[in-house]
Amino acid sequence: MTAVETARHRLAARFARIATIGEAQAMLDWDAAAVMPPGGAAARGEQLAVLAGLAHALLTAPETADDLAAAEAAPPAGAWERANLRRMRHVHTRASALPPDLVEARARANSACEKRWREARRSSDFALVRAPLAEVLRLTREAAAALAPALGRSPYDALMDGFQPGMSEAAVTPLFIAYESWLAGALPRAEAREARLPAASPPPGPFAEEAQEALCRGLAARVGLDFDHARLDRSAHPFCGGTPEDVRITTRYDEAEFLQAVMGVLHETGHALYERGLPAAWRRQPVGEAAGMAAHESQSLIVEMQACRSDAFLSWLGPELHRAFGGDPAPYAPANLARLTRRVRRGFIRVEADEMTYPAHVILRFRLERALVAGDLAVAELPAAWNDGFRALLGLEVPDDARGCLQDIHWYDGGFGYFPAYTLGAMAAAQLMAAARRAAPGLDGALAGGDFAPLTGWLGREIHARASLLDLDALLEAATGKPLDAADFTAHLTARYLA
Amino acid sequence: MTAVETARHRLAARFARIATIGEAQAMLDWDAAAVMPPGGAAARGEQLAVLAGLAHALLTAPETADDLAAAEAAPPAGAWERANLRRMRHVHTRASALPPDLVEARARANSACEKRWREARRSSDFALVRAPLAEVLRLTREAAAALAPALGRSPYDALMDGFQPGMSEAAVTPLFIAYESWLAGALPRAEAREARLPAASPPPGPFAEEAQEALCRGLAARVGLDFDHARLDRSAHPFCGGTPEDVRITTRYDEAEFLQAVMGVLHETGHALYERGLPAAWRRQPVGEAAGMAAHESQSLIVEMQACRSDAFLSWLGPELHRAFGGDPAPYAPANLARLTRRVRRGFIRVEADEMTYPAHVILRFRLERALVAGDLAVAELPAAWNDGFRALLGLEVPDDARGCLQDIHWYDGGFGYFPAYTLGAMAAAQLMAAARRAAPGLDGALAGGDFAPLTGWLGREIHARASLLDLDALLEAATGKPLDAADFTAHLTARYLA
Repeated sequence: MTAVETARHRLAARFARIATIGEAQAMLDWDAAAVMPPGGAAARGEQLAVLAGLAHALLTAPETADDLAAAEAAPPAGAWERANLRRMRHVHTRASALPPDLVEARARANSACEKRWREARRSSDFALVRAPLAEVLRLTREAAAALAPALGRSPYDALMDGFQPGMSEAAVTPLFIAYESWLAGALPRAEAREARLPAASPPPGPFAEEAQEALCRGLAARVGLDFDHARLDRSAHPFCGGTPEDVRITTRYDEAEFLQAVMGVLHETGHALYERGLPAAWRRQPVGEAAGMAAHESQSLIVEMQACRSDAFLSWLGPELHRAFGGDPAPYAPANLARLTRRVRRGFIRVEADEMTYPAHVILRFRLERALVAGDLAVAELPAAWNDGFRALLGLEVPDDARGCLQDIHWYDGGFGYFPAYTLGAMAAAQLMAAARRAAPGLDGALAGGDFAPLTGWLGREIHARASLLDLDALLEAATGKPLDAADFTAHLTARYLA
Repeated sequence: MTAVETARHRLAARFARIATIGEAQAMLDWDAAAVMPPGGAAARGEQLAVLAGLAHALLTAPETADDLAAAEAAPPAGAWERANLRRMRHVHTRASALPPDLVEARARANSACEKRWREARRSSDFALVRAPLAEVLRLTREAAAALAPALGRSPYDALMDGFQPGMSEAAVTPLFIAYESWLAGALPRAEAREARLPAASPPPGPFAEEAQEALCRGLAARVGLDFDHARLDRSAHPFCGGTPEDVRITTRYDEAEFLQAVMGVLHETGHALYERGLPAAWRRQPVGEAAGMAAHESQSLIVEMQACRSDAFLSWLGPELHRAFGGDPAPYAPANLARLTRRVRRGFIRVEADEMTYPAHVILRFRLERALVAGDLAVAELPAAWNDGFRALLGLEVPDDARGCLQDIHWYDGGFGYFPAYTLGAMAAAQLMAAARRAAPGLDGALAGGDFAPLTGWLGREIHARASLLDLDALLEAATGKPLDAADFTAHLTARYLA
């Protein structure tokens, strides 16, 4: 082997090792959320910290830097190989830009703040968490300042890049401005239209958890999840975790109402199919990973919002639901199901928001976190700024901080720069659905028969199999003919809520 | 800090890191056995291999050897500190004696052989697994030969020492010879006595799994397991895993019969209480671990065999079982329960054996594995040697290898030197029970009221809290006044089966 070949081999082995440690962390995270007894939390924290330290040490070892430099001196010919090397450099740059003391201090501050936040949210008392959040923000800003020159980006862009590589404030801002002005006109019209429709009538419960679980499992399998490589469990906050060969999705059940669990499982199934569809040939290499959090969200939302709330699929789902729960068939009629699953409602809580107002929640957080990271907004001023912004965007008076700036865990756990991914994912999902319909004209007919193969086959080829070969805009361009824009999203909302 | 203090601190930190990696491995092992979908197996194997490699690298790094030498040059004053340093050296000696290539080759050969063994056992075809077992044995002998000089022990003793530190063939042989000759007289008398008793009448089933599980959970809690720090799940082969703060026990349920699940859970609860009771001050240090597999088995067997099959406890358990399952109360009468849970039966299968014949199964395996490791018995001769030995010990003709030398996973997975721990544990359990009864005269009265506190309190102080401060004989001497012997065990069996 030449010296360059040796460097490439060593890098591949080292990054595979790092990824395998990441898999162990993912399984322990799942365990902590889904099955761990409460008394295991402290030991679990130690286990995760030690694994994180081992992975970080492998990544930042001098040999890694030497091998990266040697490999870059003679770039490989293949596009995948080149993209893999670029992704390795990107991961390495991010990891080496941060002094280990800062990484540790952030982990400690985030964890302390998150604990306090649970209390603060329960009692809707922002003062309780003000000091710990200020400390989290101080360290986040320090990290952003260290990352910015290494990445050649602004501090806030450096944070966003940690969740969606390459994403920038400059790319997001015009999309959000356009959406905000579209929403100002569209929302009152959607509300007026909804007021004219017959009221939705929810099927009368109760719906036994076991019956809901069996139904959810069957639906996930129908969308394409293979339970030889997956589990469905329960957790307080639904998520998709695990590894591509062993993907773990969770949900929660409410015996009074099953649509939240059903739609939640379909959402996580979208995430799970992405992981399952990543290319085996690039497993455990940086280029073999999903293309970022916005890309991931596009896959959950295209299943949940685009496909599963479509007229076509609801016409198949209604009789299935009635078969599962029995009773009067009327509430399971597709038209009623459509009214139940496609309501537009201004509300205070992001995770309960409909797909039209959801972006407003995200836009508010995007503005506030930019200002916090820039130093233009002090933590003490956050509640008032939140309430002002919320009034401006959705015209509602926030009644208390629990329903305002205390509702989401993200900032209190140090997650600045993540929020935009939700709405970028929603826009990408609409753009992908439009392209999928062009590529597979029978797609809606298939959904009306409960058949996801035309959609998931297309996504598998166009998105899943490409992993991180391309950045988000290039990935969308390859799949849909254009980089990310909001036109297909607003067209989708117009067709669904304003027609 | 002085140089010695620095070395001690670094060692403590390094061994804590190694132990924490071990905790992650333990959780992933539990997951694989209890909840993992089958498609996750290959990735899980990789995860465990990478973690094992990282722990091994930390243990065998030159800095560890240097710090050990520095710390040993100025031995600490405290008994715990000295024992911890001795245990560190022991672990380090074992790990560094084996070349990394051999460790890897064994892992690969064991895993290949174990897979083939599942097939061979299914079809009762020893020829299928002969070659892979020969390879496992070859590598095991190579490892034993490398360990022997490093530890100053014989090759077979070096293998036993990996499961029960300090245990030796010389210590085990006289115990087993004495037991064998006692059994030759006792077994026919026990059988004759049992033939004169009224036949046991099993409660008529079925017993719903959920009801069995609720019962088992309640019983484990009553013995003292705190489910804030524990889980009870299902797996094909019951075990106790996890960590001291998050201990995971499993069982399996048969709706036709509940005593196997109940006694299995009580057994695993004994293991779990040991882990829970290890001293917090020495968590993640070698001296803070359980004192070996025989010591561990003594804790499961003292709960299951000594306490839970006693007349005292069965008199409490009968009405509890009847409350759980209802129906005719007659089969739940303590005398009938005693006949059901205390049958002596010569049989072919170790894991189904009663406590009187169980040691015969172990003695056979001990002899055969000594001969295999010594090179006195070839793998091809194993089936015939097994059948001859079984005839000599229990007077039965082995009908096929599935019920003979193919029944246990241990050898096929490279586990030579483990089997004696089962019977040493049974003997230690009887010895501890006799001492506990002397120390707490109200112990049986408490068991008759379903109260385990006198027993578990004594075990907590005498065994659990001492962790690996003492080796097995010294631990038993501190708790019972004498090193391990078989007298209390045969006295227990005499009282229970020959009186």
